[in-house]
Amino acid sequence: MEWISKSNILIVGLGLMGGSYARALKRLGYHIMAIDSKQSSIDYALENGIIDRGISEVKEEFVKDADAVIFALYPGVFKEWIRDYQKFLKPGALITDVTGVKSCVVYDIQEMLRGDVEYIAAHPMAGREVYGVENSDDSIFRNANYIVTPTEKNTETAIEWCKSLGKILGFRKISVLTPEEHDKMIGFLSQLTHVIAVALMTCTDNQHLVDYTGDSFRDLTRIARINENMWSELFLLNKDILIKEIDMFEKELKEMRNMLADDDIEGLKDKMRLSTKRRAYFD
Amino acid sequence: MEWISKSNILIVGLGLMGGSYARALKRLGYHIMAIDSKQSSIDYALENGIIDRGISEVKEEFVKDADAVIFALYPGVFKEWIRDYQKFLKPGALITDVTGVKSCVVYDIQEMLRGDVEYIAAHPMAGREVYGVENSDDSIFRNANYIVTPTEKNTETAIEWCKSLGKILGFRKISVLTPEEHDKMIGFLSQLTHVIAVALMTCTDNQHLVDYTGDSFRDLTRIARINENMWSELFLLNKDILIKEIDMFEKELKEMRNMLADDDIEGLKDKMRLSTKRRAYFD
Repeated sequence: MEWISKSNILIVGLGLMGGSYARALKRLGYHIMAIDSKQSSIDYALENGIIDRGISEVKEEFVKDADAVIFALYPGVFKEWIRDYQKFLKPGALITDVTGVKSCVVYDIQEMLRGDVEYIAAHPMAGREVYGVENSDDSIFRNANYIVTPTEKNTETAIEWCKSLGKILGFRKISVLTPEEHDKMIGFLSQLTHVIAVALMTCTDNQHLVDYTGDSFRDLTRIARINENMWSELFLLNKDILIKEIDMFEKELKEMRNMLADDDIEGLKDKMRLSTKRRAYFD
Repeated sequence: MEWISKSNILIVGLGLMGGSYARALKRLGYHIMAIDSKQSSIDYALENGIIDRGISEVKEEFVKDADAVIFALYPGVFKEWIRDYQKFLKPGALITDVTGVKSCVVYDIQEMLRGDVEYIAAHPMAGREVYGVENSDDSIFRNANYIVTPTEKNTETAIEWCKSLGKILGFRKISVLTPEEHDKMIGFLSQLTHVIAVALMTCTDNQHLVDYTGDSFRDLTRIARINENMWSELFLLNKDILIKEIDMFEKELKEMRNMLADDDIEGLKDKMRLSTKRRAYFD
């Protein structure tokens, strides 16, 4: 497996996701390096054996040791890093990422990247409602999907390497989508659901209802504890798609509302039957 | 405890909820009788020791043995039963129910009920996505809330009896609300969440996304497998409240949508911070 040859792996951004990658890869025997602007994150990871080497400032002699680099940064910071520091990358290095939106990141970075370095994009669809390397845990990959989003600029070798990375990290399912397909899928399955959960939480002051809350409300709002810096950036980077998804959902909600107003019990039952039938596919 | 004296308990409607009540109460030593129009449900319950006696047609000599009657019927059927068969009830009998909406049921039934029988309403906030006595299971009460909704017509004795019933059934928390408070609470916490889950499932044909589904989408749509007969009736019986809740939620959704359209990142972050803060109370 091509992957085997990339034995020095640099993780840039050692938060929940970067830390989880580090844990999984170090256990498999790779030499794990990390850069994070927070020295305390590096210290924690070193003390707990999550990484082999780490620094809090980007340095050429450190970066150039890496055969592969995994970026676990916010999209904007990721782009700036490439602009400022790609000159330090080892010729032939492969880079990948964990960014939750793709079209707005992949093409720009491939466009500005040196010709002797290849960027193959990926999105590990895993997460937790807590943050930081201290909470990292690679068991979150076990039931999760890993999506590789190549463009026509990518080589077969890099695509296969990236799929192998997903496999050895322990993801349940590895898929390949175009950046556009990815963004549409994520707009519906992940971003729209987060918008709904947040709106349900913010639409009324519901604290007095805590005592009566059952599973339905808890389930629908679990993801309403949300990292506002990350998600506001991801939402805006995919805003055209997300707005369309919200509008589509709102139209449906309105239709059900009007069925209620019109006492259209058969219409409501039809919606519920369709819902039950479709939901069965997801079990 | 007053409850102890009501030792012959009749359950009318032996589905998931009626069956779960029967299991819990029979284990505690009560004599459990049941009426269900499906003979197969009665047969199953008798064969599996869930009830002591059961019939599929309402008969005076059966009904008049009951010291307490628990109605686990759809609201409309419940009202018809009382209208047609209350004459069979034993003088001094206490009756209660499991109906998920209250204002539209409680006053009507108390109004038409004989003076020597008392109806104290309750809503056990528990359930499963499967139906029938075959799936009944009283462990669903363990982490659930039980709400008693008395009116000024109820005696203290009956209210205490009903609270004791919730306790011995094993509910985690027993509360008392007016029928109106109950319906407003349930409109938001339970009915609105079911409308949202159904709309999310029906707004687009999403079957091709099954492969990419993560926990968020699964959590938000778990309750989209829904009994269309029961829920359409419950929705319409609480429609004024539910429509108001949908409108309130839709307004909030629109506000977030417009923030996206306007690139209002600070507005989005404020929503997410409020959401995170409020959700923390529910953990």
